[in-house]
This record gives sequence, C-alpha cells and structure tokens, in this order.
Amino acid sequence: MTYRLYHYALSPFCRKLRLVLSEKEIKFELIEEKYWEKRREFQEMNPAGTVPVLRDENVTLSESRAICEYIEALYPDPRLFPVDPLEQFETRRMISWIDEKLHHDVTSRLVGERVLKRVQERGPPVAETIAKGRKGLQFHFTYFEHLLGRRDWIAGPRMTMADFAAAAHISCLDFIGDIDWRDWPFLKNWYATMKSRPAFRPLLSEYHMKFPHPPEWYSDLDF
Amino acid sequence: MTYRLYHYALSPFCRKLRLVLSEKEIKFELIEEKYWEKRREFQEMNPAGTVPVLRDENVTLSESRAICEYIEALYPDPRLFPVDPLEQFETRRMISWIDEKLHHDVTSRLVGERVLKRVQERGPPVAETIAKGRKGLQFHFTYFEHLLGRRDWIAGPRMTMADFAAAAHISCLDFIGDIDWRDWPFLKNWYATMKSRPAFRPLLSEYHMKFPHPPEWYSDLDF
Repeated sequence: MTYRLYHYALSPFCRKLRLVLSEKEIKFELIEEKYWEKRREFQEMNPAGTVPVLRDENVTLSESRAICEYIEALYPDPRLFPVDPLEQFETRRMISWIDEKLHHDVTSRLVGERVLKRVQERGPPVAETIAKGRKGLQFHFTYFEHLLGRRDWIAGPRMTMADFAAAAHISCLDFIGDIDWRDWPFLKNWYATMKSRPAFRPLLSEYHMKFPHPPEWYSDLDF
Repeated sequence: MTYRLYHYALSPFCRKLRLVLSEKEIKFELIEEKYWEKRREFQEMNPAGTVPVLRDENVTLSESRAICEYIEALYPDPRLFPVDPLEQFETRRMISWIDEKLHHDVTSRLVGERVLKRVQERGPPVAETIAKGRKGLQFHFTYFEHLLGRRDWIAGPRMTMADFAAAAHISCLDFIGDIDWRDWPFLKNWYATMKSRPAFRPLLSEYHMKFPHPPEWYSDLDF
C-alpha cells in the first residue's frame, strides 16, 4: 500500500505534508495536480478543489491540517504534537497562525502574484499586492524572530508540526527570492537546521522550468 | 478559578467556543471586546488581534480551533472529537471547511457587509459582496444538505466539534435573517436539534440594540 499525494510544487500546504510524510518515513507517490483547472475527478475527490489530497485504496483525504493530525495519530513516531496540553495548544495556535495568517498576509500575495498568476494565466502581477505582501513579510518575520530569540523551535522547546508548517511557507518564499536573510539571524539559524533534515532534500532539489530561478542559496544548507 | 472570555457577539468563532464551554459545563465570564479598536492590552494578549481570547490566572489562549482542542484535552466529557482516527479526521476536515471556507465565502461577506461594517463605521455595504455571499450560501448549504441527507451529524454518526462550528456560523447568518429555511429541510432539522441544547440558550436570548432585529423564528426552537 502506497499513498498517492496529489500536489502542486509551490503550495505550502503540499510542502508541509510532504515534509511530514518524509520525516515519518512514510512512502508516497507524487502526482502533480493543476488544481485551478478544476478537473472533474479531482473535484470529486475534494469538493473544496484544493491541494493536497492524499489517497490510498481505502481513503481519500483533503485539507492539510486534518491530514497531518490523521497521519500523526496513525504514525506517532517521531511525535510532532507534544504530549503536554499547553505545548500542544501552542503548536496548533502557531499552525493556524502560519497556515491562515502568514498565508493570507504574505505567501498568497508574493507567490500568488509573482508565480501562480503567470502559471495560471491570470494576468500580470499587481504591484500593490506585492508591496502588501512585502510589508506582511516584515511583520511576520519580526514575530518569528521575536519567538526564536526566546525558544528553540517555533512552538516551544521541541520540534513540532508548527516547524514543518513554517518551513513549508518559508521555503516557497525563499524559492522566489523574497527573503533578505541578513535581517533575520534567529530565523536563518532555525531554517538552516530545518533544511539540513533529510526530509527536506527532495524539495530543495526541485526546479521547475516555468518558475523563475531560485536564488543561489536556496538549496545551500549553510547559506 | 473562572475563565474570562473576550468575545464579540456576532463572531462565529466566539459563538463556537461559548457553545463548547457551555456544552462541557465549564463556567466562564463574558467580556465584550471591540477587537477592531486594537486596544493595546488586547493586542498584547493576542498579537493576531482576533477574538476569542480565553484567560485564567495562568494562561492566555487565542485562536479558536487551538483553544477548542485544548479544552477537549482538559475536559474530555462530553467528548467532541471521536476516538476513531478517520472520524476524527472528518471532524477536523469539516471544522476547517466551516471556519475557513464557509467563513470566507459566506459569513465574513454577509455578516461583515450587513452588520460589522456599520458597527465598525467602515462605510456602506457593497451590493456585489452581499451578492457573492448569497451565492456562497447556496453552494455551502447545498453541500451541508447533501451531507445531512447521508449522516446524522455534520461529520458523521456522532455529534462533534464540527456541529458546534457549523451551528455557530449558521446562528450568525440566521440572526441577520439571511436563511430561507424552506430550501434546506435536512439542515433545518439538524439546526433545530442543535438549538434545543441548553448550551444554545444564552446565544438565542441575546439581542443587541445596534444590530438589526433578528427574524421572528431566530429563538424559536420549533421554527
């Protein structure tokens, strides 16, 4: 039994799930899904029309957070949600922060305007949206920098699901060259640790002809 | 020790948490927070600036989904997340659907344009946004109707957290009179069951001078 993962390379939600599956050493096959084309078979798998979708012979799963919790319940080693209820709370709070607020304020704007619009043929990028995305990045990265000055990992003293959520978004933003790493020393140090995990390798070696070329440090573990 | 809940009456996320706390018979004190005024003490409690925030002597919690999971871990009776991993998955998938997609497509548009904009003095409602919200409502309610024709509760054979998430949004939409119940027999039947729970009573008896009057059936259990 192998999982099939319907994904799109620059979706942070797909990247998070790929990282988590690899971290837990779960085998899966990648299938690219151009979700904006609204293929009928895909809409039937997930009426929300979003990637990722994870399938095996018995189940069809959509919505990345619900999938990650399901994977954690079935494959608890290594543990990515802490046992302590308050640490678990902070992990989930940060996942929501990242997957909703960071995505809305930053990733959807920068990756959306600069790459997805072109790929999806939705017209030229809007400078105002990119400016908003850049301003959002300053706010969010200042917050991460504040947190990582006080704790080793995004949600506390342990590596958790929140680290994979954050690393997934940041890897998309780094791919399009939107991060000036000199401004964020704690975040840079944490991201270097995340990038050096074996689970990260397939993401870093992935280059897509249609995308702008990533900056030279994108796959450099000691950037 | 009593919890203090910083809330706003027409926030579906606050309503969900109020319903869940009441269902579990946890005492709490309500404090109205006009979150859009960005009170400094409130921003310090929650840098995202959103309601609800739940506090006691030791902790300050924000982000309604993370809070609900924490409350479930501390007060597991009655259980609102199923034990079976696949049922648990479906519960979380539906919570994301409701709190992200339904909120984005419907609640934020209809409640936002018709009530919040006025209360927050953000100008007159935009007809196009209201029209989009009404179209979204048709899509989402058709989906709920489809689900509730096949299962007793929103996420499967048991009442779960997803039912409280859905009831919270629907109670906001019903408050502003945007639901024509004749179109949705399964949903109407399910909502009547939810409304008849003791946890629902405080919400239904709440009328705010500044809001438009709710329709006559809003607090009628046999509407």
